[in-house]
Amino acid sequence: MEVFGRWESEIRGYCRAYPTVFVSSSNARQGDEQGKSFIDFFAGAGVLNFGHNNPRMKAAIVEYIQQDGITHSLDMYTQAKRAFIETFVEVILQPRGWDHRLQFMGPTGTNAVEAALKLARRVTGRPNVVAFHKGFHGMTLGSLALTANSYFRGAAGVPLNHVMHVPFGCETPCADCQLGCGMDSLNALRARFQDSSSGLAPPAAFVVEAIQAEGGVNVASEVWLQGVQQLASDLGALFIIDDIQAGCGRTGNYFSFDGMGLAPDIVCLAKGLGGFGTPIAMNLVKPEHDAHWSPGEHTGTFRGQNLSFVAGRIGLEYFRDGELLTAVRRKGGVLREALQGLASRYRRLGFQVRGKGMMQAIDLRDGALAKRVAGNCFKLGLIIGPCGTGGKVIKLIPPLTIPDDDLQAGLELLARAIDQAVEAA
Amino acid sequence: MEVFGRWESEIRGYCRAYPTVFVSSSNARQGDEQGKSFIDFFAGAGVLNFGHNNPRMKAAIVEYIQQDGITHSLDMYTQAKRAFIETFVEVILQPRGWDHRLQFMGPTGTNAVEAALKLARRVTGRPNVVAFHKGFHGMTLGSLALTANSYFRGAAGVPLNHVMHVPFGCETPCADCQLGCGMDSLNALRARFQDSSSGLAPPAAFVVEAIQAEGGVNVASEVWLQGVQQLASDLGALFIIDDIQAGCGRTGNYFSFDGMGLAPDIVCLAKGLGGFGTPIAMNLVKPEHDAHWSPGEHTGTFRGQNLSFVAGRIGLEYFRDGELLTAVRRKGGVLREALQGLASRYRRLGFQVRGKGMMQAIDLRDGALAKRVAGNCFKLGLIIGPCGTGGKVIKLIPPLTIPDDDLQAGLELLARAIDQAVEAA
Amino acid sequence: MEVFGRWESEIRGYCRAYPTVFVSSSNARQGDEQGKSFIDFFAGAGVLNFGHNNPRMKAAIVEYIQQDGITHSLDMYTQAKRAFIETFVEVILQPRGWDHRLQFMGPTGTNAVEAALKLARRVTGRPNVVAFHKGFHGMTLGSLALTANSYFRGAAGVPLNHVMHVPFGCETPCADCQLGCGMDSLNALRARFQDSSSGLAPPAAFVVEAIQAEGGVNVASEVWLQGVQQLASDLGALFIIDDIQAGCGRTGNYFSFDGMGLAPDIVCLAKGLGGFGTPIAMNLVKPEHDAHWSPGEHTGTFRGQNLSFVAGRIGLEYFRDGELLTAVRRKGGVLREALQGLASRYRRLGFQVRGKGMMQAIDLRDGALAKRVAGNCFKLGLIIGPCGTGGKVIKLIPPLTIPDDDLQAGLELLARAIDQAVEAA
Amino acid sequence: MEVFGRWESEIRGYCRAYPTVFVSSSNARQGDEQGKSFIDFFAGAGVLNFGHNNPRMKAAIVEYIQQDGITHSLDMYTQAKRAFIETFVEVILQPRGWDHRLQFMGPTGTNAVEAALKLARRVTGRPNVVAFHKGFHGMTLGSLALTANSYFRGAAGVPLNHVMHVPFGCETPCADCQLGCGMDSLNALRARFQDSSSGLAPPAAFVVEAIQAEGGVNVASEVWLQGVQQLASDLGALFIIDDIQAGCGRTGNYFSFDGMGLAPDIVCLAKGLGGFGTPIAMNLVKPEHDAHWSPGEHTGTFRGQNLSFVAGRIGLEYFRDGELLTAVRRKGGVLREALQGLASRYRRLGFQVRGKGMMQAIDLRDGALAKRVAGNCFKLGLIIGPCGTGGKVIKLIPPLTIPDDDLQAGLELLARAIDQAVEAA
Repeated sequence: MEVFGRWESEIRGYCRAYPTVFVSSSNARQGDEQGKSFIDFFAGAGVLNFGHNNPRMKAAIVEYIQQDGITHSLDMYTQAKRAFIETFVEVILQPRGWDHRLQFMGPTGTNAVEAALKLARRVTGRPNVVAFHKGFHGMTLGSLALTANSYFRGAAGVPLNHVMHVPFGCETPCADCQLGCGMDSLNALRARFQDSSSGLAPPAAFVVEAIQAEGGVNVASEVWLQGVQQLASDLGALFIIDDIQAGCGRTGNYFSFDGMGLAPDIVCLAKGLGGFGTPIAMNLVKPEHDAHWSPGEHTGTFRGQNLSFVAGRIGLEYFRDGELLTAVRRKGGVLREALQGLASRYRRLGFQVRGKGMMQAIDLRDGALAKRVAGNCFKLGLIIGPCGTGGKVIKLIPPLTIPDDDLQAGLELLARAIDQAVEAA
Repeated sequence: MEVFGRWESEIRGYCRAYPTVFVSSSNARQGDEQGKSFIDFFAGAGVLNFGHNNPRMKAAIVEYIQQDGITHSLDMYTQAKRAFIETFVEVILQPRGWDHRLQFMGPTGTNAVEAALKLARRVTGRPNVVAFHKGFHGMTLGSLALTANSYFRGAAGVPLNHVMHVPFGCETPCADCQLGCGMDSLNALRARFQDSSSGLAPPAAFVVEAIQAEGGVNVASEVWLQGVQQLASDLGALFIIDDIQAGCGRTGNYFSFDGMGLAPDIVCLAKGLGGFGTPIAMNLVKPEHDAHWSPGEHTGTFRGQNLSFVAGRIGLEYFRDGELLTAVRRKGGVLREALQGLASRYRRLGFQVRGKGMMQAIDLRDGALAKRVAGNCFKLGLIIGPCGTGGKVIKLIPPLTIPDDDLQAGLELLARAIDQAVEAA
Repeated sequence: MEVFGRWESEIRGYCRAYPTVFVSSSNARQGDEQGKSFIDFFAGAGVLNFGHNNPRMKAAIVEYIQQDGITHSLDMYTQAKRAFIETFVEVILQPRGWDHRLQFMGPTGTNAVEAALKLARRVTGRPNVVAFHKGFHGMTLGSLALTANSYFRGAAGVPLNHVMHVPFGCETPCADCQLGCGMDSLNALRARFQDSSSGLAPPAAFVVEAIQAEGGVNVASEVWLQGVQQLASDLGALFIIDDIQAGCGRTGNYFSFDGMGLAPDIVCLAKGLGGFGTPIAMNLVKPEHDAHWSPGEHTGTFRGQNLSFVAGRIGLEYFRDGELLTAVRRKGGVLREALQGLASRYRRLGFQVRGKGMMQAIDLRDGALAKRVAGNCFKLGLIIGPCGTGGKVIKLIPPLTIPDDDLQAGLELLARAIDQAVEAA
Repeated sequence: MEVFGRWESEIRGYCRAYPTVFVSSSNARQGDEQGKSFIDFFAGAGVLNFGHNNPRMKAAIVEYIQQDGITHSLDMYTQAKRAFIETFVEVILQPRGWDHRLQFMGPTGTNAVEAALKLARRVTGRPNVVAFHKGFHGMTLGSLALTANSYFRGAAGVPLNHVMHVPFGCETPCADCQLGCGMDSLNALRARFQDSSSGLAPPAAFVVEAIQAEGGVNVASEVWLQGVQQLASDLGALFIIDDIQAGCGRTGNYFSFDGMGLAPDIVCLAKGLGGFGTPIAMNLVKPEHDAHWSPGEHTGTFRGQNLSFVAGRIGLEYFRDGELLTAVRRKGGVLREALQGLASRYRRLGFQVRGKGMMQAIDLRDGALAKRVAGNCFKLGLIIGPCGTGGKVIKLIPPLTIPDDDLQAGLELLARAIDQAVEAA
């Protein structure tokens, strides 16, 4: 590990919490050089929805490479891309009656958000955007302005303008939250935008996560999301859902907001869209907005990632029938029940369980405690990621394909890690 | 192709110039569905330095995948990453006596530039950055502010502040250029920065390409680059070279600025660093600057791209000895000579040849003509990319590994394409 | 009047509502070329607190001029300035136990606000400032960013950044207001600033009017103002009161916020501070903040207005005893009672009466109606100014020295104007 | 003087160089409490063109006040304003064949510049403005962004965006200047604006002083000013001359740029426009631009300064015939000759004489020396103001009406002050 300490940038982060060198991985298991096997409840921050080295994807990618398939194509046409698009249209868009266009860009979530911001500003001719407390949307300057966490914002080096952060609308209010989240704030926001003496100009867009993943697994209520969509529409603004972490099946539906009667102007996707770990990012854009783009106005060298198209097409096949999503709901229930058990066991500490499908979390309400828990997990052989303000929330996002026994085993390790951490306090 | 027309975003660009569906590729050849074979003088915009589907990379990647190697690791430690780092240090850093740190981020060039900007602003406490006319540095809001082309800037939707664009320093001045490029401008810029009544505050950084690739293959002179480095140093600003397109062997050395006695505070790398087409981006950062980062301040889900580490390590092996670079210089000479022949043939049209190593270009001084040339090339079976103001420059960046006969054949197709285009005018 | 129509800018405003040429004025009377006498319930937008051509001021100014007193002195020392400062210290600062420093700048309210912003940003090292819905703070770019009205903001031509507009805290909520004003919003704002994941950085200052004059005569509650001061203090931000229109005796005390236990870091004064109509502006600045200024950092050619010092000193003499302020409270009661009578008469229209001391207003809740009322007033011989969102509020700010019969007569004209306007509807 | 030290803000500046309390003044003489009489070569920073307490103005103002003339009228119509407008049109506009509209705003130069910026941005729909090295345009945020001096800019507390500072075009280049001023820079600037890959968007306006007063008395050449006007026109930008300090007769014509065939879109005036020391500011705006204003979009309480209209009308009378301007040219010659004598006497120190009409300066090329000179002047009874970078330029701007013997005496004191200062070095 000295190589990293000597030569890699001080900015490296996760490796400080997981100080070992990983070698191989399969489905929900990740192994290190010492031969230790870890259960993975983190799934590459939500990328590896179909498990590490998903065998179907492996086979397809290897075959593609061996046949000298095009790997890198910018936005030229390739067969792999066409197959991906066709599958996405068939499996995702048409069942919903959507005719959104698919836009590919530099293959990171932040690039997708940047492209969405450009388009919303172009379409409306307005600079300002509404984002939400605790939201996370990326690290490049445009999307960083949306990201709420002061730790990330503090690295910008220039003012992060043209964004207004307002309260979110949790289904279940966070314990002790006093930010004024919910419908009252949203109604006041409407009044503020509609009063010509408020100082607020109508925005280009509302950019919202239906579930704030990095922000602490805050699940927006359906009625609030509908209210945001309506307000956007009434103000002539675009309604943009960033489904980068919560989408692609994670919550028991393909989109985290499915079934709510929402029709976002733009949906930002990335992480789980490829599913094998090779990058991809894509926006779904209503055609009337997409028509505002001129060719090549938002480019990106790596926007034609054919290995991701190949793997991603296979990922999409999982949604042709309900098998995977049914399993996600079932396993999500297992996760939730286990966390609720922990919350009950430590009722005096006021833990709170939040989540949807296979993104479940326990808010320990104490960042130091959560850090000890994560440390214990690592020692016990479980990889999890703290999130939320001060890192006080333990988020569980195992591969959707995790075997039941790994799921069970991981939950037991987590329980033990919490027990140890609470005792040590 | 209707699938793309019906469902892909209107923003798609290159596919409009190359209206066919590509299927497979090998070294400098790319084939389409109709069985037509194209010679590739574009190399994925400079990514595929080692050829499409480089056989050594193919083998290594396939083996890695088949052994369930870790594909996606954020910034956790993996064996593949360690091997990459070790090789980079041995082959690139140590021979130069450098002790820069390696920082990985979201795997696109624009993310590298964004990270460099954040760090320069952090280190200096200053917001403003100097960039250069015709420079290209990316599409996300921070790097877009550096990018000079008005077509891209026009899509920002918000003001692109905190950047000052000044004249560049071409080795050979562009024909008819009146921008005031060169040492006089640089000297005046020094005076302007040093006069407390100029209105100019000292900048955080100078961000420069040693060769402006997208900007029209403008090769900076050594003395001018040294002057920029000295000015940056005198002003307490960082000297940042964006070597994303021109680096990684393209110009006959590993860095496009090798041999000039330069020691940039930050070097931004991406494209050719992986070399197989899977994305990667990396900054080299002097340790005294790198120490200003706190862990995880600039994150990115896809910053641990192990397939790119695997391929990239093999790419680096090409620089252990001089074989590849010798060939690059030789083939660069072939390219240059051919272009000069064309310039001679059409002396009356004032074509200008510019470039270094295997990035060579002919400035046709007429965007419409260049567009016809590119169209002819496509029909004849050659892929090239226009660049520069109004797309008037034909840039040739074939894979460094292109076989001599493909090189020759491609140049003949280019000559024919130009002949036809000039005749048609 | 053709001279004006032909040669003066189209931007001229009040003259369109008062299409006559005024010639002379005395106390609360203003006469035009046709010999018509108007009762003035507008007092030069709050400047002429001591009446047009206050005889004591006239005498002093004329004597000063005739003795060749210094008229214009930048920030050199003059006797007139010293006398003004001494009187201000004796009459205003020392009775309150304050040791604020007096800063003079370009003699307009907006310049005072600009200087306050600079200092708050300097002291805190923070760019952002909190301002309030419906606030008015001036027209130059820095203060315009605080001003809430979209009509004024729309003329900026550049984004108005670094300001966040939040709900105000009216003593009596405006009828139908849904902006979420009051303590709940303030408490949520505190939580939002204190949550490190809100996206809100702690501000440099809170800039508030204790009574929003242009914004519709919205009187802040004492407890809310105390809350704002406390929040500013807790966040390390400056608490700045813009008392430019409501200060200098207008509300029955010297400052509009007297008696509330407030100690603002900066108080901005202008309008009534001179009192004769010649301009002056001044900030009161706590010495620990004032120490952050370097000499001449915020200059202004006209910052040494000695005629204003001469008149202003006499204005200050009115506050040595309670006579004027007692009268202000009494006459304010007369105004209020009359307006409440009108509100009662038209209960079905839901008029609302708001105000303090001799700044009283009736909110007609209909801008078109208010415009008719103002037009009728002009015809009847009364000058009043609509304010508030859409100009729906009739604000009464006669000279504090208005004779009782003029006050009475003016109120009768107003009643008639409203009667006529309501009938015409 | 303790009163000031105890209670006035630390920001006070000139009084530190002139530590005495002034009492009265007449034409070019200013007297202090100790009975000492000073010759005034500063004229209130260029306001008092017609002398302190000009007797005609005194009489008119006193009469106006005694007749209860309207002092303060916002933008309502008054007789005094009409007379001022009529006179300005007759004496200034019509002889030049101009039909500019007269716009009044808050009575400071900075407010005039702010209004001009708003209008230029409105007319063009562009945010950015070109200003020039060493320019001075005011202290409020919009005009401060134009002001070049880093001392003033450093107090902004927020980034000063949307302005680009470029080299000026001195008639006689400043000794040792290396900023690249002159036509070459202007030609390169044209090329930079016209190249779509320069990163420069076409600006809303070029804002220029024909003579940079605060910047060190830099006199622009006629050909360069014409070039700026042409470039503005070609780019669809407004050509704005800030004639606040150099206008109103100072340079031997009414405007500092008279006789050069210029027709600015906007001319900003203030200081000498009133002439008595009471403030006023006014823009001359071409009617086609003025039509873009809506009523009251840029307001200001003190925009109807009738004492300034009364005095200003008398000031304008001085320009009905050539008497004053002839005298200005003659006295300007006297000033210049004296300064050239000093430059000759100290040839080894490289002093440089610059100026036009009665704005003449000697560049001592050493701020410390200039400070000693100014201190000596004060002791000897002469008031002058250093300007330029580091305060190294001694600027002489006596009242245009200064008697010849005071002019002579003042020049002798200056010579002595320089002699003493040089000896002391």
